[in-house]
Amino acid sequence: MDGDRVDKVLQDVLKEITPSEQEKQQTSAILDKVKSATNEILKPFGFSHLVAGSFIRDTWMRDKKEFDVFILFPKNRSREKLEKDGLEIGKNIAKKLRGKHRIAFAEHPYVRANIDGYEIDIVPCYKVDSALRIKSAVDRTPFHNEWLSRHLFPKFIPEVRLFKQFCKGQGLYGSDTKTLGFSGYLCELLTINYRNFRTLAEAAAKWEPGKVLINLEGFSGFDDIDYLHKKFPKQPLIVVDPVDPGRNVAAAVSPENFMKFVFACREFLKKPSRDFFFRKPFQVDPEKLEREMLNKKSKFIGFSFKAPDVIPDILWPQLRRTGKRIRDMLEDHDFGVMNWDVWTNDLDKCIIFFELESWSLPKHRKLIGPSIFSKRHTGEFIEKYKDKGRIWIENEFWVAEIRRTFQEVRPKLKEILTEDEKTLKAKGIASYLAKEITKKFDILQERELISHARRYPEFGELLTNFFEKRVV
Amino acid sequence: MDGDRVDKVLQDVLKEITPSEQEKQQTSAILDKVKSATNEILKPFGFSHLVAGSFIRDTWMRDKKEFDVFILFPKNRSREKLEKDGLEIGKNIAKKLRGKHRIAFAEHPYVRANIDGYEIDIVPCYKVDSALRIKSAVDRTPFHNEWLSRHLFPKFIPEVRLFKQFCKGQGLYGSDTKTLGFSGYLCELLTINYRNFRTLAEAAAKWEPGKVLINLEGFSGFDDIDYLHKKFPKQPLIVVDPVDPGRNVAAAVSPENFMKFVFACREFLKKPSRDFFFRKPFQVDPEKLEREMLNKKSKFIGFSFKAPDVIPDILWPQLRRTGKRIRDMLEDHDFGVMNWDVWTNDLDKCIIFFELESWSLPKHRKLIGPSIFSKRHTGEFIEKYKDKGRIWIENEFWVAEIRRTFQEVRPKLKEILTEDEKTLKAKGIASYLAKEITKKFDILQERELISHARRYPEFGELLTNFFEKRVV
Repeated sequence: MDGDRVDKVLQDVLKEITPSEQEKQQTSAILDKVKSATNEILKPFGFSHLVAGSFIRDTWMRDKKEFDVFILFPKNRSREKLEKDGLEIGKNIAKKLRGKHRIAFAEHPYVRANIDGYEIDIVPCYKVDSALRIKSAVDRTPFHNEWLSRHLFPKFIPEVRLFKQFCKGQGLYGSDTKTLGFSGYLCELLTINYRNFRTLAEAAAKWEPGKVLINLEGFSGFDDIDYLHKKFPKQPLIVVDPVDPGRNVAAAVSPENFMKFVFACREFLKKPSRDFFFRKPFQVDPEKLEREMLNKKSKFIGFSFKAPDVIPDILWPQLRRTGKRIRDMLEDHDFGVMNWDVWTNDLDKCIIFFELESWSLPKHRKLIGPSIFSKRHTGEFIEKYKDKGRIWIENEFWVAEIRRTFQEVRPKLKEILTEDEKTLKAKGIASYLAKEITKKFDILQERELISHARRYPEFGELLTNFFEKRVV
Repeated sequence: MDGDRVDKVLQDVLKEITPSEQEKQQTSAILDKVKSATNEILKPFGFSHLVAGSFIRDTWMRDKKEFDVFILFPKNRSREKLEKDGLEIGKNIAKKLRGKHRIAFAEHPYVRANIDGYEIDIVPCYKVDSALRIKSAVDRTPFHNEWLSRHLFPKFIPEVRLFKQFCKGQGLYGSDTKTLGFSGYLCELLTINYRNFRTLAEAAAKWEPGKVLINLEGFSGFDDIDYLHKKFPKQPLIVVDPVDPGRNVAAAVSPENFMKFVFACREFLKKPSRDFFFRKPFQVDPEKLEREMLNKKSKFIGFSFKAPDVIPDILWPQLRRTGKRIRDMLEDHDFGVMNWDVWTNDLDKCIIFFELESWSLPKHRKLIGPSIFSKRHTGEFIEKYKDKGRIWIENEFWVAEIRRTFQEVRPKLKEILTEDEKTLKAKGIASYLAKEITKKFDILQERELISHARRYPEFGELLTNFFEKRVV
């Protein structure tokens, strides 16, 4: 029976991913060091702190050397004061631990410190009485910590690790705006609900989008499916936050990633293998990529520009929003876009690119106008186009054949982007990107895209995936 | 004032187009000859006959050497008998006059004879008491003749000639299915209504489609515009037949030709000139045509086949219907058609051709499927496409990328046409054409279209017009 095989695979994977005693000790040592430094810095302020995340629950992953330290401000402190003191405290902690640091921005600014190879976010938040009365999203974390401390029993810990590792293997781990997948907290809640990874996978193999509801605290009113669909529209997976029934912990999981997860569970149970948990190290093959690109007989065009200095969680949605707008603008000019995607290394480079169905158009464009039986619209149509091209009638409708401004996609894309910042924003280009595009952008065609794939392996992977991705 | 100039032009044109005394005598002689031969042949049958058309009203045009002879059958005679005896009588008349003849088909078969260079259609019809009780369309003609004999006064005759000549000059003369313009009878009625060509042109310059109603007999109930639009939908010009209020004499006038006529009247009154009445002899310039064709950066493709042996009035609508169906089939396969047209010399050659916006497509085609939230449609979509290509999800929708059968338009067009007669008909190819296409067709691309334009000047004119036609 395959059941045995599943358990065997899970045992093997678990051995691989459980941190060694040495690693655990090292982690404990780091935690202690950070805690004590934080206590010392906070003494004059009289604030408390909280180390959050998988580290304190022992559900951390070996290669994820990061955790958050929350500085709990009294709730009557002004936002301004919180931001100012929060940065001050963060910087002092980093200095005390002899780490590097930089200031990052999410809902408010915070300090990101690197200490002994660990990435530690030092985040100020308000200490509130209930998760329902939070003043900003980060204020909720202490309540998650508290709830998990009561429900995440030691027996669940290896199961959480297996689940997280499975998500990682499928590229679905993380609720960040790039991944749109399963957060660590979501993995913990789902494990608590299903008690072990195997039961979870068996249930998920049968999940249907919009029909899955996990309500661990049994909040009332959540048995009405119509109510849920109104409250969480187009969310395939609903996991009610045990500390806040108004919130879906799985809100970040995109429909595509939900289905990917369901199919991955089905496949895993059918043919259990270690490979589901570990992504194969990716080797870009630029020659193959080029062959595939040219072989599709579509046309690729995109552009690159410098990444603005904002956190990835802001950058990725801005890139996607901008890609969509430019896609629409190209289509408005009859350049049919089949597929498109965006990429950034979150450092110095952004790329938005399109796969086109049509890229070289006839010199003229035909417009269907109003019925000849409509006097007013007839007058307007003729007035508008009589000097721009020829006008005739087909069936009962006016038609105009006017000269195109852009027959080729390259100059059209260039025209879209060559604007001042205000105009770019007015066109729908997201604000941080508009600023960078104004400074400089480079149009990329097949050859340039391939050379970027060569230079940036992560982009090469994305581009390769562009030709191969499939859910079913 | 331009008024004088208009009158001057009209006088000059009239001189040119009025038949000479000699021509009139020649025509009278022919008429007499045909009438007496017909009388003699009809004697044993006891039937009467009627010569119809502009000849008997003296409104004929010099270059239109044709008229119809109607053989009036008693209305109790069977259709079968009428057809059989009608042909017999026709043949005998042609023989007696030593003319050539052939059998042609409209609503029923008839004899088309050529006698001394005149084309004479000998058409059997029923002698009925009222135009409201006709058994076939041709039975109406005697009533038109009778009505006109009472209303078309001699003073109208030169005005009718001017009007007809103006329509000819604009390519709008004739209600046949190729021209879709103004019939002789319509010209006569409009002239009677407006009393002279000039008043008619001044009125027409202000015509609006769907708002023109000519009701010479003052039939009641025709003052309600909503009623008219229901009775004659999408007909820009409504001229109620004085002998049959249920019929619009201008039904054949297409919306495009209506507007062409209106604009021509406006232009003529603004800048009166003889040129409006006479089309310039057309010289095809194949080199210029080829330059224009290539310069448009669109793609031309079409096909030719042998013209079936049917009258033009049946052939042209079949060609247009077939062109439209093939246009739709090409568009269903993503080959965007900007414009198309059909042509035949009514003898041995038919051509249907298309101007394409896209003719070479990517290897794959992307299909947007159902929402992932619809279980049933999800299942159907996956089942249908899982083996044909890759499937993924965008936003909340399934998408499939499947291999195209045809990337290029030429093989696609060939595939559409390479079928047995039954299948061609099932695809929507009109019946007479389907039969000929089954036997043989030739795909024509730019070069072949140009060489046809060289060989058939009338096709060359149509193709030239394709690039130049405009109404406004």
